[in-house]
Amino acid sequence: MLERTKRHLFDEATRVSAGDSRWLGQTSEDYWAFVGPFGGATAATMLRALIDHPQRSGDPLSFTVNYCALIAEGVFDLDVRLVRANRSTQHWSIELTQAGGDVLTLATAVFAERRPSWSHQPTQLPQVRPFEEIRPFHGFGASWIKQYDFRFIDGEPDFSAANKDVPASAFSNMWISDRIPRKIDALSLMSMSDAFFGRVFHVRRELVPFGTVSLTTYFHIDAEELTREDISRVLAIADANIFHKGYGDQTGKLWSPSGRLLATTHQIAYFKA
Amino acid sequence: MLERTKRHLFDEATRVSAGDSRWLGQTSEDYWAFVGPFGGATAATMLRALIDHPQRSGDPLSFTVNYCALIAEGVFDLDVRLVRANRSTQHWSIELTQAGGDVLTLATAVFAERRPSWSHQPTQLPQVRPFEEIRPFHGFGASWIKQYDFRFIDGEPDFSAANKDVPASAFSNMWISDRIPRKIDALSLMSMSDAFFGRVFHVRRELVPFGTVSLTTYFHIDAEELTREDISRVLAIADANIFHKGYGDQTGKLWSPSGRLLATTHQIAYFKA
Repeated sequence: MLERTKRHLFDEATRVSAGDSRWLGQTSEDYWAFVGPFGGATAATMLRALIDHPQRSGDPLSFTVNYCALIAEGVFDLDVRLVRANRSTQHWSIELTQAGGDVLTLATAVFAERRPSWSHQPTQLPQVRPFEEIRPFHGFGASWIKQYDFRFIDGEPDFSAANKDVPASAFSNMWISDRIPRKIDALSLMSMSDAFFGRVFHVRRELVPFGTVSLTTYFHIDAEELTREDISRVLAIADANIFHKGYGDQTGKLWSPSGRLLATTHQIAYFKA
Repeated sequence: MLERTKRHLFDEATRVSAGDSRWLGQTSEDYWAFVGPFGGATAATMLRALIDHPQRSGDPLSFTVNYCALIAEGVFDLDVRLVRANRSTQHWSIELTQAGGDVLTLATAVFAERRPSWSHQPTQLPQVRPFEEIRPFHGFGASWIKQYDFRFIDGEPDFSAANKDVPASAFSNMWISDRIPRKIDALSLMSMSDAFFGRVFHVRRELVPFGTVSLTTYFHIDAEELTREDISRVLAIADANIFHKGYGDQTGKLWSPSGRLLATTHQIAYFKA
């Protein structure tokens, strides 16, 4: 019984206290990155404030987070605003501040009540080795990495100094699950959107100063369908197109093992190299 | 001399009147879509207000536009806010309203002063037929389409009723130039990010009700480098991953003929089919 009533670490880390236009959240030492909170947890916390909002209708369709400045350890305020509501969509904005200071994270979201339509998924789930057959990635450094069970099919990071001047591939392909399995919901998808390691780490084969600047995730499944998928892991694929003058991009896809495309995600990130 | 001093239609359509926190723009009948202004022109107008802003520093790095509701023909207000400025980046938000009403378009932007770094572009410009060898696309309906010279290499839309039940490819590959050539700048890239036809039109081989909900463009070149490219057209590539429950995605790349990746763009769009 204890196991069933105890909150999952992820839910604990991304909890919010109810408010109306202003909500409270807090950083978590369990989801900490090198110099601040793990951006995926911050994004999921902001998304949770919307999902739990009394005026919310529909499910997340699009979520964009701009990371403006470092969030310090501790509590933060979420200033939530329903910018516009139409018949079947809602547009939201959220600003994260600490101690009444400047905006640290700025997000916009679109929620939609999705109705049946013609469906077509040109992209197909790649054939990959099953989760159970792959040894877990051993992780490095930041605490948030320990909260996920990564199983690389392709593109496991290699930080050996060998061939550092010949860029490695930016592509990777892996299973991601919460370390303590948790049923995948929109919050997991939001957080996992930022759970790819910086592409620059893969390509350069080394850790360099890195930070996501702007992240957008599109959700291709509604809450009811996602509940029916009933999964605790996703196949996650990431790649990059360019690294130039201190910034690089990342594109990602999150798949259900059943072959459904759950979410696509894109980000632009700062690096120093 | 007249030709040199007369403003390009695109600059006329996306002009803004200087303000401080509030700027004025207006819709253009030259860049009109089926039921409202062409979203690319709206995005470019909002971006211009930032580029022309006295507090702006650096160049566009990321721009996200959420189209909340239809903009009526006529003038609109742009409420521009510098949310956060750091040493080398600026975070902005812009809200578009008409006649003091609700927000119709909500955008966030990141500007960055880009410094030299290690550069790497894993993605390569595909080999394609030159612009001059391809006949211009004849266009359809909306006035904005006439403002661009589209030359399809692959995936020219086919609206014949044949095989409507077998989905066609969502991929297309084309040259885009302003009909009256204009040197490519960040404003062109922003507008051209939305100048792909709805992927659903390609796949369904028919025009259906369609509207972009959220659009994000990442800029991979700064203003000085783009000026040096000195080009009046881009190779534009678009594709889609999924159409489901009334929404579909689009991914795009804008290339310089020299092989440089200028911008990547993503959107989620509503459709009725």
